[in-house]
Amino acid sequence: MIDLRSDVMTLPTEGMLRAMTSAPLGDEQVREDPTVLALEDELTGLLGQEAALFVPSATMANQIALLCQVRRGQEIVGERNSHMFRYEAGGPAFLAGAVVTGLPGEAGVFTGDQVREIAQVRDSEHRPRTALAVVEDTHNVSGGRAWPLAALDDLHDTCDELGLAVHIDGARLFNAAVALDVPPDRITARARTVAVCFSKGLGCPAGAALVGRSDALAPARRVRQMLGGSLRQAGVLAGAARYALQHNVARLADDHANARVLATLLAEGGLPIDPAGVDTNFVFLDLASLGLDREDARDRLRSHGVLWSNAHHPTVLRAVTHLGHSEADLRTAAARTVEALSKEP
Amino acid sequence: MIDLRSDVMTLPTEGMLRAMTSAPLGDEQVREDPTVLALEDELTGLLGQEAALFVPSATMANQIALLCQVRRGQEIVGERNSHMFRYEAGGPAFLAGAVVTGLPGEAGVFTGDQVREIAQVRDSEHRPRTALAVVEDTHNVSGGRAWPLAALDDLHDTCDELGLAVHIDGARLFNAAVALDVPPDRITARARTVAVCFSKGLGCPAGAALVGRSDALAPARRVRQMLGGSLRQAGVLAGAARYALQHNVARLADDHANARVLATLLAEGGLPIDPAGVDTNFVFLDLASLGLDREDARDRLRSHGVLWSNAHHPTVLRAVTHLGHSEADLRTAAARTVEALSKEP
Amino acid sequence: MIDLRSDVMTLPTEGMLRAMTSAPLGDEQVREDPTVLALEDELTGLLGQEAALFVPSATMANQIALLCQVRRGQEIVGERNSHMFRYEAGGPAFLAGAVVTGLPGEAGVFTGDQVREIAQVRDSEHRPRTALAVVEDTHNVSGGRAWPLAALDDLHDTCDELGLAVHIDGARLFNAAVALDVPPDRITARARTVAVCFSKGLGCPAGAALVGRSDALAPARRVRQMLGGSLRQAGVLAGAARYALQHNVARLADDHANARVLATLLAEGGLPIDPAGVDTNFVFLDLASLGLDREDARDRLRSHGVLWSNAHHPTVLRAVTHLGHSEADLRTAAARTVEALSKEP
Amino acid sequence: MIDLRSDVMTLPTEGMLRAMTSAPLGDEQVREDPTVLALEDELTGLLGQEAALFVPSATMANQIALLCQVRRGQEIVGERNSHMFRYEAGGPAFLAGAVVTGLPGEAGVFTGDQVREIAQVRDSEHRPRTALAVVEDTHNVSGGRAWPLAALDDLHDTCDELGLAVHIDGARLFNAAVALDVPPDRITARARTVAVCFSKGLGCPAGAALVGRSDALAPARRVRQMLGGSLRQAGVLAGAARYALQHNVARLADDHANARVLATLLAEGGLPIDPAGVDTNFVFLDLASLGLDREDARDRLRSHGVLWSNAHHPTVLRAVTHLGHSEADLRTAAARTVEALSKEP
Repeated sequence: MIDLRSDVMTLPTEGMLRAMTSAPLGDEQVREDPTVLALEDELTGLLGQEAALFVPSATMANQIALLCQVRRGQEIVGERNSHMFRYEAGGPAFLAGAVVTGLPGEAGVFTGDQVREIAQVRDSEHRPRTALAVVEDTHNVSGGRAWPLAALDDLHDTCDELGLAVHIDGARLFNAAVALDVPPDRITARARTVAVCFSKGLGCPAGAALVGRSDALAPARRVRQMLGGSLRQAGVLAGAARYALQHNVARLADDHANARVLATLLAEGGLPIDPAGVDTNFVFLDLASLGLDREDARDRLRSHGVLWSNAHHPTVLRAVTHLGHSEADLRTAAARTVEALSKEP
Repeated sequence: MIDLRSDVMTLPTEGMLRAMTSAPLGDEQVREDPTVLALEDELTGLLGQEAALFVPSATMANQIALLCQVRRGQEIVGERNSHMFRYEAGGPAFLAGAVVTGLPGEAGVFTGDQVREIAQVRDSEHRPRTALAVVEDTHNVSGGRAWPLAALDDLHDTCDELGLAVHIDGARLFNAAVALDVPPDRITARARTVAVCFSKGLGCPAGAALVGRSDALAPARRVRQMLGGSLRQAGVLAGAARYALQHNVARLADDHANARVLATLLAEGGLPIDPAGVDTNFVFLDLASLGLDREDARDRLRSHGVLWSNAHHPTVLRAVTHLGHSEADLRTAAARTVEALSKEP
Repeated sequence: MIDLRSDVMTLPTEGMLRAMTSAPLGDEQVREDPTVLALEDELTGLLGQEAALFVPSATMANQIALLCQVRRGQEIVGERNSHMFRYEAGGPAFLAGAVVTGLPGEAGVFTGDQVREIAQVRDSEHRPRTALAVVEDTHNVSGGRAWPLAALDDLHDTCDELGLAVHIDGARLFNAAVALDVPPDRITARARTVAVCFSKGLGCPAGAALVGRSDALAPARRVRQMLGGSLRQAGVLAGAARYALQHNVARLADDHANARVLATLLAEGGLPIDPAGVDTNFVFLDLASLGLDREDARDRLRSHGVLWSNAHHPTVLRAVTHLGHSEADLRTAAARTVEALSKEP
Repeated sequence: MIDLRSDVMTLPTEGMLRAMTSAPLGDEQVREDPTVLALEDELTGLLGQEAALFVPSATMANQIALLCQVRRGQEIVGERNSHMFRYEAGGPAFLAGAVVTGLPGEAGVFTGDQVREIAQVRDSEHRPRTALAVVEDTHNVSGGRAWPLAALDDLHDTCDELGLAVHIDGARLFNAAVALDVPPDRITARARTVAVCFSKGLGCPAGAALVGRSDALAPARRVRQMLGGSLRQAGVLAGAARYALQHNVARLADDHANARVLATLLAEGGLPIDPAGVDTNFVFLDLASLGLDREDARDRLRSHGVLWSNAHHPTVLRAVTHLGHSEADLRTAAARTVEALSKEP
């Protein structure tokens, strides 16, 4: 069975497990875990920021970013299908009390002009004040698309002018950097806060970080404590993250190449896919034109030995490549997919 | 000076003041105020509902509706420029913790299909569950537009099918009923909750009500108490409301006719207005094609003896007719407006 | 029937109704109601403060005070049976997200030392920071007791030293001032915020105010708007409040005298009451030593033509005097009470 | 240096690290991690419950318990110095919006009668309804004291009668079970929810669980997702927890014996300690009678090669024994402590 459901399903490699068990440990709540301290230091350098906080998950990093920067009743804006808005259980409203305003985007990208049109940047007795713009890079629901740097710069220019903070939900930030062939700080240095995740393409079992300006993160440790995200010997997970930063970033290019291989073979096999839409490690397959029911299609694929998952749009299937896949796996998966979806049911 | 800023600025008439001072009173918190009880009874009949609660303001009625029907982290949907979403200080997110999802509308109207496309109607660990659709009728930001009954029926059909509750923000509900020439319950009977306001075109100094199904309103008195909306001898305000229901509803037709007079005269005077867009008592004047700055325009109008207010869109001015205006007032106001905006500055 | 249930049940007098209907009015949300502006100005002078905001109820004044001064997860301290803690539907936790820490008091009074023992005045990742102390004066649950000035000064000294704000819930502040024979600002000038109510012994149908330092009240209008407490022609209620400040404050001494008459006559009639515990307009009668069930006792009293209400403690009945009672009423009520509770059931 | 600051500082042993790296893993968010499933199954059996959820920390387990069982504005009661009330950053108020009512306890224990005296068990428009009682066992601030079973039974009897749920904050539950020499389910079977921690005396680097009735935990996975507590290959931590349950529970008796050795030697050395107050692995030393400043005392102890931490009460030091200490360590620590605190500064 070739499992293409998600890069969150990666298992730690031998090397990573050794890194976890050999990492020096201490009590992170009193800042005595050397592995966490080293990781946080590496991250601030890598992302061009000032402070970092290790947390159990990217969702928590995102929620802490809001709790640090948004007051209840204030507005956050972002692409309307952002993970934070659509897949974090309503946390921005539940926890931070934020007015969540989704903008229609193109490939996950929205513009400074869209923000300018709706932002309320002065205090008002009636209108919720806009506090923060959220960039998701790469953008999950649109198919792992990376924000073009010009679009990002445009958004920053507008937000600077309006006095809005920018948070980057970089759950797959390193995929974006590799896809654009830029160092990560080219993407993150102007943001006020950035969430990164080690548990997706980087292959860790768990762990993420909130990175950003020192003043933005000032309340972050207290908020993390309150949410229950402060671990004790967190170095066992931070050790995996350090290993991943060293060994698993550059190789994301392989995952992207594999995704293109898959998409190309599917297109060659007659399935309705445009390989040009594959920026990173996601492949989306829209069943609408095939007249196939999505659940039926997934069942057929499973019986042919390949697992796809549901994308956000109700007629679309999703495949995600990761370090657990070789190019040969993807070639096999492509053949099985073509066979499964082409024959009469 | 003719003040067209808003129908919230109406002053109580002699008859209304007499009704207020002669209303029998008691302690409303222990349900001993006979005037409030009578008003609540009238409202349930008028709106085809089961229960009613008198509150100080329509904003509070709207917020109580959410606190009664929406759990934190759940989603509410409505037109993206709804008053509740844009002009209630972020209350839906601050108080109810709701994910506020705004849909683009036409004249304040959105469709069942738009709701169906985004609604999440089953529990999910990741996606916020959709709980409620908000209809604002008449719709303020679009220019006091009344929902066509067919559009309302379509929305109810979809929400019934999806299992979503519908709340009507009827701050100007009676304007809608008069404009459509239907009894109010034709608009409200299928909603689960309805907010109505007595302090706009109905001419009361304050006061509103939340009306709806008994089970929806079950926690409403406790919520009102917590928000500080439980008054003691509330009959002084409820007396005004009862007077308004008796004397000031049918006459809203005059306000609507006056608004059309204003719009027609402005159009005849060369200003860019389409009188066909005047459903009720709002007149919108878009300055964009005139090349006028809005603040300058308002100053000129003031110096000509007529007060307009700012509409939501940054180039639009708003005039609102109400019981304080005669037709002659509107004719005078039209002439002053044409003169003020036509001459060279 | 003589109704001693509560001073919230007072009905507006002829003079007050005239004041309400003759008050000049305007739209308070845009600060054009002259009666509200005049009332707010009078209150800042009377209470030795800088800013004031008219609101529908004392509960709302209290909740706005918290929302302006306390961040979620911070602690507020006060006497454990404070009205805000026990009778406002959990609002301090629900709305402000405050950790509500109740201290055991004597006659509603707690001490600076009690605050010092538990206050956390530095930021901590683990401990909730203490933000505010709440004084309720007079204190309802303890029997309308007025805080001795020395106790109040002691609390202020400690709070100044610790950097804690003090909020006075002065729903019956004027009773305290009259009982202590001091001007109101002797009680309120050191507080950061003060809530006062016009709808209890002052005889208004509704209305209250939040008064305090300008910086403390900076967000108050926005918060009031969000809660739905911003009225339009609020002058109809503010006119009653202005009348009450002029005519109904000094006469609270009569209510206090009447309460002592009642208590003295009950004691003379053999009921277990100590008139020395009557500071203001509350009389508490503990049925425990009489072996009477409280509901039975209230029924008997009702059938003898006098209404008492339940106090917080489950064996105690409460009578409250107000401007609707003459001394003769209280003498009659005392006789009826003695008769009702003395005879065999 | 002998570090007695806390049992949270334990480091994973070789055996535990092997268990972590050899545990079978999967994606826990889709319930495919076999190690987590096995752990949750073991826990329900061990604690006499129906459902379990693995979470990163005991703080998160406690907060999820509240979010599942307490509605905003409802009251929770517990000992006033409970960890949840005093050391979780105000989370119960911030996250759940709970009215936190602390009762004065004896050795961390409060009684059913105390609950009965204050509980509000019917809905009320004014009074916050009491929803939950919190038992912390062992109780941290009182010195690691275990609840006597009779006290626990008494509390359950009262709560059953009143209709209140009971949550046990069992961050050190296994210490209590070992101290009382009962199986853990003797303590937990009547609770509606129980939090247990693997990162204290059980020696894991991180990890905890919420265990309880199925209906109580119905929303728990969604809440965990929202808080950011859902990990992917959580089996790396759950593997440590399974190892700890097998190897590190019975041996807590050694930690308790070591704590008594320490207390006894300190008492013999003339320090003001009563070894009879040592139930489990905490030793408290009150410096008040020694006339020593606490920070000075800790510095002296550090310079003698032993680390104590601050207890909640401002004059008390705390030592905590754990699997990183041998009896010889404690004997040495005792000697160093006596020497450090006895000699003239």
